[in-house]
Amino acid sequence: MNATGYAYGGQVPDWLAARAALAPHHPALVCGGERITFAELDRRANAVARRLAGRGIAPGGRVAVLLRNGTAMAELVHGAGRAGAVLVPLNTRLAPSEIAWQVADSRARLLIHDGATRGLVASMPAPVNAEVVDITIFNEGPEASASLREHIDLAAVHTIVYTSGTTGRPKGALLTYGNHWWSAVGSALNLGLHADDSWLAVLPLFHVGGLSILMRGAIYGMAVHIHEAFDPAAVNSAIDEGVTIVSAVATMLRRMLDQREGRPYPRTLRHVLLGGGPAPLPLLEECARLAVPVVQTYGLTETASQAATLAPADALRKLGSAGRPLLPTELRIERDGMPVRAGEPGEIVVRGPTVTPGYADRPEETAAALRDGWLHTGDLGYLDDEGYLYVLDRRGDLIISGGENVYPAEVEAVLLSHPAVADAGVAAQADERWGQVPVAYVVLSPGTPCTVEELLAYCRARLAGYKVPARCIVVPALPRNAAGKLMRQRLSELAAP
Amino acid sequence: MNATGYAYGGQVPDWLAARAALAPHHPALVCGGERITFAELDRRANAVARRLAGRGIAPGGRVAVLLRNGTAMAELVHGAGRAGAVLVPLNTRLAPSEIAWQVADSRARLLIHDGATRGLVASMPAPVNAEVVDITIFNEGPEASASLREHIDLAAVHTIVYTSGTTGRPKGALLTYGNHWWSAVGSALNLGLHADDSWLAVLPLFHVGGLSILMRGAIYGMAVHIHEAFDPAAVNSAIDEGVTIVSAVATMLRRMLDQREGRPYPRTLRHVLLGGGPAPLPLLEECARLAVPVVQTYGLTETASQAATLAPADALRKLGSAGRPLLPTELRIERDGMPVRAGEPGEIVVRGPTVTPGYADRPEETAAALRDGWLHTGDLGYLDDEGYLYVLDRRGDLIISGGENVYPAEVEAVLLSHPAVADAGVAAQADERWGQVPVAYVVLSPGTPCTVEELLAYCRARLAGYKVPARCIVVPALPRNAAGKLMRQRLSELAAP
Repeated sequence: MNATGYAYGGQVPDWLAARAALAPHHPALVCGGERITFAELDRRANAVARRLAGRGIAPGGRVAVLLRNGTAMAELVHGAGRAGAVLVPLNTRLAPSEIAWQVADSRARLLIHDGATRGLVASMPAPVNAEVVDITIFNEGPEASASLREHIDLAAVHTIVYTSGTTGRPKGALLTYGNHWWSAVGSALNLGLHADDSWLAVLPLFHVGGLSILMRGAIYGMAVHIHEAFDPAAVNSAIDEGVTIVSAVATMLRRMLDQREGRPYPRTLRHVLLGGGPAPLPLLEECARLAVPVVQTYGLTETASQAATLAPADALRKLGSAGRPLLPTELRIERDGMPVRAGEPGEIVVRGPTVTPGYADRPEETAAALRDGWLHTGDLGYLDDEGYLYVLDRRGDLIISGGENVYPAEVEAVLLSHPAVADAGVAAQADERWGQVPVAYVVLSPGTPCTVEELLAYCRARLAGYKVPARCIVVPALPRNAAGKLMRQRLSELAAP
Repeated sequence: MNATGYAYGGQVPDWLAARAALAPHHPALVCGGERITFAELDRRANAVARRLAGRGIAPGGRVAVLLRNGTAMAELVHGAGRAGAVLVPLNTRLAPSEIAWQVADSRARLLIHDGATRGLVASMPAPVNAEVVDITIFNEGPEASASLREHIDLAAVHTIVYTSGTTGRPKGALLTYGNHWWSAVGSALNLGLHADDSWLAVLPLFHVGGLSILMRGAIYGMAVHIHEAFDPAAVNSAIDEGVTIVSAVATMLRRMLDQREGRPYPRTLRHVLLGGGPAPLPLLEECARLAVPVVQTYGLTETASQAATLAPADALRKLGSAGRPLLPTELRIERDGMPVRAGEPGEIVVRGPTVTPGYADRPEETAAALRDGWLHTGDLGYLDDEGYLYVLDRRGDLIISGGENVYPAEVEAVLLSHPAVADAGVAAQADERWGQVPVAYVVLSPGTPCTVEELLAYCRARLAGYKVPARCIVVPALPRNAAGKLMRQRLSELAAP
């Protein structure tokens, strides 16, 4: 091990251009009835680069985008870098003040929005230090002849993606071309790569889960089907029409199965990549019964998406596990900076070529998170004796009750294993005696009668006393962010007064 | 572009160990009725490393191996690096004096042979400065507890492979772990990667074509079927039993089809990767008729195998082409150091992460071959206007006749396009008037009557006068080296006196 051991540098031909030369007529994007070939996407990416140059974006300049899923977003993802620009995709569900903060924090020179986000931009509290332009105007706007990049420097920054902010203030994670490249390669070495593959992007493209699909499309030479919003019937139709891989979160998959009413999926569906936390047992069992090829995964913005993935064969044998690290990635569990033994919980730390070089303009947070190449995720988990990862919790959600640690995800996993529970979240509630106590918020499965008392008895039979929820509240739905991640800090808003 | 742009460094977990942890019971090697799992291969690789340490091989030490295809060779390929050793695989068809020369040239400390190569080693002209040991003795020999590598440094040298020497004196090309890794990745991005893939290694494992299959097996987590020697019936049986990819040269494929007598191959056969020069038209047409998925390729020792590959869909449309460069590779045609236009012949130069860092202990040859990251292959070719590579010739085989350049491969391609020609080679013959003239050596297809006069008339109708062979000699077979490459410098030995 040495200091240069983590410099995953090098230069490769522009992968979109390479795919356009190799298979110009192959579909690159399918979206809302439109089918865009690799040759056309390549041309549009060049046009984006010239338009950015036309608006004075110099190499290294940052461009914020606030766009719904669609081809315009994909064109910017592939085109910005050709002008040397760094893309800053913003969450379209942010509040106006949060958008203004992230635009300022990222030092973006340009903010591109669309019709759906125009109102958000107009409501920003103060004028931002960036040119604001509608995508339609941008696409009709001036072009400048820029010297477009022909090669991709793997060490160059492609994107700044703000972490979801379920804990603390958002930080902009730098993602290099190399991060995206190695993520695509690691995923292909795990999931395989077929000549007729196509990947459905129904997750937001401004999060790494959706963004990584666009990168893989160009690197693999694979069609990406973009859905503007999640519609279970539309996703099921796309699968029937031959989409081979779908990225989803558990709540989406639940709604897809409900809409389908037991009709099996075609064999062309190779993988449903399931992120966003542990999946409920009834859902996994139903998938096994219907031969839905679920692949559970653990990923972060800071690792350009998947860091560990559970193989379909292990889906039930390793229930609740996120699998083993992808080949180029190392993953271990640390406590006080030292690796712990199998079965012992600790902080999940990750090293390898998909790991971000750091947070934009945040040397202190970068130094805190990255030590000797290891990314300290702040997530808690353990490895079983076969090296399979179980994610226990986000560190910020840890409940400390009477000096004992309570990991909400562990309590949630027990609740989710009950056949009557469709969804569950656990959060801390202040308590005079214990400091904090866990409180459970559950969504019940329709048609499976169950009382709160039964659920608590179920927990008492399976958990140490201090982990059993002090209260259990039945709610119609849980708060999840755009990436499908449970926002535990908002659970208490659901509590009855 | 900058000096560090070609430093494809970085560190990854040991890929064989990763595969052994992920799928311990998956077959890694199938050879002669033996089936070795990834867990077992991982254990054997560690044993190899301890035995090398037991014989005093220190990190950086070079170990020459003179072994037939088999599991012992594969164990050394995966195990040597764990002790920090660099493997020097030697061609088992070399003469004893050539072996002695390469052992000395490589500065190997150890030479491991087997029963089949014992006689060769015993006949070496002078004592070599290396310990000589039979593989059986080695495998029963002393082990030392070495601190085995857990990570793979992609910049470290894995192998020294002597180039085939069809021109000039052999040189040992350094191949790093990164060269092999990127080659495996580039091939997967081109050929795809299926969960049930298995790759048949019937090419010699001491050449890069066979060696690269072993590397891919461990990187992909894929079974490699090793055949000790080429037997067309055995290859056909392996395909019937489910092997999905086969690497072969045209003469092998010809014999496979002959043995099969028209019976189609199963759909499980995904690719027949065809190297070693242009394939005869009748062979390609027969493959198309039988739906044999032929993939023509251009590769070099110095690029860790494939540099360009023709997609199956283009096999007949781009007859004789080796396709486009694999994604991480750049390829262009140069004359006098400058790129030439489409259609113009020149030297094939290649750049990218699969390119060797140079020749062992040969700074001058390295500097001559590698300039600004570009490997000057010495091969002649051109790109058509769609960027498809046509290999014209090895530079050393160029025939100059009356001041005009004659590329033997061009004449051979014409001869091979005649339905009566099974194989063809063209070489120079001294001529008082023109300096040199081309002479053709052809192998006729059985059952297709044809005269030499007809073949020459066929050439005259398709080639400029100075390219038409002065003589055409019918021979029973052409001289090819162990990798199947035509040895044109030996063609004249076939001429009738």
